[in-house]
Amino acid sequence: MAEAVATTRRSRITPEREAELYEAVLDLLREVGYDALTMDAVAARTRSSKATLYRQWGGKAELVVKALRHSKPGHGEDIDTGSLRGDLHALVAMEDDCAMERNSALMRGVAMAMHHNDDLRKAFREQMIDPEMGGFHQIIRRAIDRGEVRPDCPAIDFLLHMMVGGFATRALLDDQPPTQAFLTSYIDAVVLPALGAPTS
Amino acid sequence: MAEAVATTRRSRITPEREAELYEAVLDLLREVGYDALTMDAVAARTRSSKATLYRQWGGKAELVVKALRHSKPGHGEDIDTGSLRGDLHALVAMEDDCAMERNSALMRGVAMAMHHNDDLRKAFREQMIDPEMGGFHQIIRRAIDRGEVRPDCPAIDFLLHMMVGGFATRALLDDQPPTQAFLTSYIDAVVLPALGAPTS
Repeated sequence: MAEAVATTRRSRITPEREAELYEAVLDLLREVGYDALTMDAVAARTRSSKATLYRQWGGKAELVVKALRHSKPGHGEDIDTGSLRGDLHALVAMEDDCAMERNSALMRGVAMAMHHNDDLRKAFREQMIDPEMGGFHQIIRRAIDRGEVRPDCPAIDFLLHMMVGGFATRALLDDQPPTQAFLTSYIDAVVLPALGAPTS
Repeated sequence: MAEAVATTRRSRITPEREAELYEAVLDLLREVGYDALTMDAVAARTRSSKATLYRQWGGKAELVVKALRHSKPGHGEDIDTGSLRGDLHALVAMEDDCAMERNSALMRGVAMAMHHNDDLRKAFREQMIDPEMGGFHQIIRRAIDRGEVRPDCPAIDFLLHMMVGGFATRALLDDQPPTQAFLTSYIDAVVLPALGAPTS
């Protein structure tokens, strides 16, 4: 019932206004981080009322995760190049290096805050990780159907760990933002061989 | 010259006192995080003078990284089981699950703080990542000598990304702390196949 009301009310906001609001939330997130970000600040920055924000999004965690999700170009549902290597490279190519660097910094902050904010972790899982998993599962299923990956290959269960791990450790270990070139080499050197898939 | 003085002065502290001090630093780090941790708080908690702390460690970043390093059982320099799989499994077995969970939380906090603290990043690189790299290089060199890994295998360059990535993404993606069982499966499913090394 509450859900139905929220859905009805949400329809009053235009997509342009929604995009503007998400952009403001991400700006604030970059400026002060998740823990210091307040709904008051979002309301002030976007000239909205707090009541509206709560009614539309339910809370800070949901608003932040929706904003992050909005900034992502997609989860690769539309990618289908005909090979696993092509699909994974295409996934990486969805974001240019500049966007990837900005996203990498944001994601680090949010990943950190998730550890002591249960509602953020829950929202992140539902809105970001589960859809991402869904996209990967489609890509892997097609690779299995084409005979590129054996259906019992144990690395399948770790596909997201491998992909996110490459992205997340680049800054930590090499003091450089993840780039398309880095991730593409990482896919060819690590992900495809682990899956036993063709690397060229 | 300053280095020589610091070394002389450091020798006045007993190993027991040093261990006690590092433990207090890690406790504070768990309680308040890196950014909110102050040398005043460390001095108060350990009944030291701030002057002593600065003289011995130079600053907060160095003190925190030394404390983290002290809490690690080692970098695997002494591991030599006769196979790459054995060596990587032995690395994982150096920390029990309880220690790993505690370390994982600490490392997340520090990894996060590194992104906006240049001195912390530098100290972490010199004291933690470089020695870790050294340990991995020895392990890989022996695997190459034994013919388990081809010297031109492209995954060699990503060994630390793979290992740290598995450790770091477990909590993020699965909402569970990394365990020996998880990391051992991950090594068998991802790291060894990527390196083209025997998985049994």
